[in-house]
Amino acid sequence: MRKVRVYITLKQGVLDPEGKAIQTSLHSLDYPEVEDVRVGKYIELQVKEGADLKGRVAQMCEQLLANPVIEDYQIELEGAR
Amino acid sequence: MRKVRVYITLKQGVLDPEGKAIQTSLHSLDYPEVEDVRVGKYIELQVKEGADLKGRVAQMCEQLLANPVIEDYQIELEGAR
Repeated sequence: MRKVRVYITLKQGVLDPEGKAIQTSLHSLDYPEVEDVRVGKYIELQVKEGADLKGRVAQMCEQLLANPVIEDYQIELEGAR
Repeated sequence: MRKVRVYITLKQGVLDPEGKAIQTSLHSLDYPEVEDVRVGKYIELQVKEGADLKGRVAQMCEQLLANPVIEDYQIELEGAR
């Protein structure tokens, strides 16, 4: 079993209204130092060991986890345990 | 300016219906090796340098970004740039 972490972020240039809303709220909560907020997803998978694990997770991202038109993804495999 | 990464995850024991839905979808897309999926949030902040930057971001998490009753958060500061 291996833990795989997937980070999904909006591509540069794609508007992030949720991030903007958070930024506005942070300003009104008296955190004026926050200059930009981008919101993404963080997905933790527990995957059985197998051939080309990272490649298969990349396929999962393309097919289901991310929207490759507007999102980037990054995959991190944790040491086996 | 400093980039701060915040990872928000559900606490252990808190049900994650979104994760379960993704797992079921992955199984029907022929990825039976996926044994568990947990979904969290990934937030990137650009914050002006200042005193106790990490402490202030922790306060933002407690007040707005996370729900500390059911969620954990982890803060990562990137090198200044």
